[in-house]
Amino acid sequence: MKRLAILGSTGSIGVNTLDIVQRHPDRFEVVSLSGGLNIELLRDQALRFRPKLVSVLNAEVAQELQRDLTGLKIEVVHGVEGLIRVATHPEVDQVVSAIVGAVGLIPTLSAIKSGKPIALANKEPLVMAGKLIMEEAKKNGVTILPIDSEHSAIFQSLLGHRKEDIHRLILTASGGPFLNLPISKLHEVTVKDALHHPHWEMGKKITIDSASLMNKGLEVIEAHWLFDIPVEKISVQIHPQSVIHSMVEYTDGSIICQLAIADMRIPIAYALSFPSRMELPLPFLDLPRVGPLTFSHPDPEKFPCLQLAYQSIEIGETMPTILNAANEVAVHSFLDGMIRFTDIPSVIRRVMEEHQVKPIQTIEDILKADQWAREKAKSLIERKKLC
Amino acid sequence: MKRLAILGSTGSIGVNTLDIVQRHPDRFEVVSLSGGLNIELLRDQALRFRPKLVSVLNAEVAQELQRDLTGLKIEVVHGVEGLIRVATHPEVDQVVSAIVGAVGLIPTLSAIKSGKPIALANKEPLVMAGKLIMEEAKKNGVTILPIDSEHSAIFQSLLGHRKEDIHRLILTASGGPFLNLPISKLHEVTVKDALHHPHWEMGKKITIDSASLMNKGLEVIEAHWLFDIPVEKISVQIHPQSVIHSMVEYTDGSIICQLAIADMRIPIAYALSFPSRMELPLPFLDLPRVGPLTFSHPDPEKFPCLQLAYQSIEIGETMPTILNAANEVAVHSFLDGMIRFTDIPSVIRRVMEEHQVKPIQTIEDILKADQWAREKAKSLIERKKLC
Repeated sequence: MKRLAILGSTGSIGVNTLDIVQRHPDRFEVVSLSGGLNIELLRDQALRFRPKLVSVLNAEVAQELQRDLTGLKIEVVHGVEGLIRVATHPEVDQVVSAIVGAVGLIPTLSAIKSGKPIALANKEPLVMAGKLIMEEAKKNGVTILPIDSEHSAIFQSLLGHRKEDIHRLILTASGGPFLNLPISKLHEVTVKDALHHPHWEMGKKITIDSASLMNKGLEVIEAHWLFDIPVEKISVQIHPQSVIHSMVEYTDGSIICQLAIADMRIPIAYALSFPSRMELPLPFLDLPRVGPLTFSHPDPEKFPCLQLAYQSIEIGETMPTILNAANEVAVHSFLDGMIRFTDIPSVIRRVMEEHQVKPIQTIEDILKADQWAREKAKSLIERKKLC
Repeated sequence: MKRLAILGSTGSIGVNTLDIVQRHPDRFEVVSLSGGLNIELLRDQALRFRPKLVSVLNAEVAQELQRDLTGLKIEVVHGVEGLIRVATHPEVDQVVSAIVGAVGLIPTLSAIKSGKPIALANKEPLVMAGKLIMEEAKKNGVTILPIDSEHSAIFQSLLGHRKEDIHRLILTASGGPFLNLPISKLHEVTVKDALHHPHWEMGKKITIDSASLMNKGLEVIEAHWLFDIPVEKISVQIHPQSVIHSMVEYTDGSIICQLAIADMRIPIAYALSFPSRMELPLPFLDLPRVGPLTFSHPDPEKFPCLQLAYQSIEIGETMPTILNAANEVAVHSFLDGMIRFTDIPSVIRRVMEEHQVKPIQTIEDILKADQWAREKAKSLIERKKLC
């Protein structure tokens, strides 16, 4: 029996994780949950899975939820402290880190420091603080199993092969909803257009990141830290069918890769049950029915976010944190109708240009850089100084 | 330094193996070679690689070659005894088994009995005597590394994953030169048509087997023995681009597979250098340039050889030996212009129908069945009683 903490249980990854848990009550138990704004879903989850601990956004919501759960021996906590308690509960065997964005950093790092194995869907912490996180994981003997379909594919394609034989990692990208849109039309796209991902059903932030290819840029940085591979050995190919989830190219010219239907329950289940695999209530991939698989190179002019991500990790230190923070602010401003889709890379570029790179010693250095970049991005957007 | 015996050094696999050896004199040395009819090439190889032992077809050729190699301390031997000496030379660390057809059985089995690790390209011995060979390999602690690109791909896709999680092996097939030919035209095809393989440069026998899909049928049987997987868990998909060399589907819906350009030096080098990989003087696979990858199911009516192979292994015992022997005779008769391409499966089917299946206890049972099938096939072809 594996006892789980789920950080971000009401998001897409959290819901899919609980779907797997529910189908395998013999294998998994939920010890603790944390949710964000969707308090009704969180209450339903608490009632169904009976965790010992639930964390919510603030004291007010905590009080309300505690009242709803009266007599059930479920403790409701809140805030960053609450997230840390969820992540480090002594009975937890594995932490599913599925919060979206920078807010996942502190609880994920706390889980690592308390020696909990991590199933990682939340990529922003690695982008912001990859070096610190991997050092802590090493120090505490913590394994981090990726949930992102791309990183799960790479993880599976590395197993049994020698690291010194790696020539290149190839992350595949669907190309998002604007792959075939002329670049001249890109400034006109609406929020609705951008939220229409061709293959994956995901949360809003990651869907916009997929449309801008920033998601792939963040994944390059994530792969760099997760697999300890220099960023110049990580490339991206557009593969609109999302069948090959990523590849590892070896020095002899062999590529090993993982294919599956586009359903997050596959990489989630793998991260939960590794090294074994679970049978899932999903259809197998039917290659003859899928139709042709195609590949192309990303267009750097049309998708500048990917280039910005490469630049940030090449510069290193605080720069990826800046990229990530500016991107989060820009994406939310786009979702709120404050800026255009094409303004997203402009905001990020401007914030990166104005940033003075600093070395990272502690988590505070990161949080400071993150804060600076958010304020800078907000002020640029308010003053509409984007170009 | 790895010291090699190469059975079948003048064939396509042998020549490619020596190409790799020549580029890596620091890693490989040739102890013994055997060749067939191409005596000039064998002499050149002997002069260049200076093996201690060379085996040829018969005493006459042996005498001639020994004269040419006077003063070089290269012993020339011949016949089955010669092949066995090449395969079991005490200084040999690994045997590359690359003879085409049933004649490779005895030397390969001898190598296994003397504890030599095998790099196996010669699939017919496993088809004929899979059970005996795998039992001997187990008994003698011998590893058999596949050279066939399909089996190398499967081997690489199994590494690091659990055997109990395998759902299915999927062997890919280019479909050969007649993939898009209407079935009604198939009886008209010439030897030249059949020898025109779309991707691989190989010997004549295997090229005809590729055109009839018998090669894929033999590979199904080979995979069954090599990986100890029930034949009903092995399927075949047509993949005309020959980029994905085969796949392993796991119970969670994940497929792991190996891709590379179509060059036999990649799987040969892997079998020689496993578990490490060698850099090769070959271009890397450029997926965006390759164009779309497509998949379909084989047409059982158009390619009855594949079905016959499945039937033979389902019946078991001597039947795969019969299939293989009848196929060898039929293919050579087609190459000699004695029968049509569409007669190949007719010959095999008739021989299989007339065969009374017997249990296999010893290698003699196999050789007897093989002999019976060859005679039966020849007599059918001579009397043109094919339907």
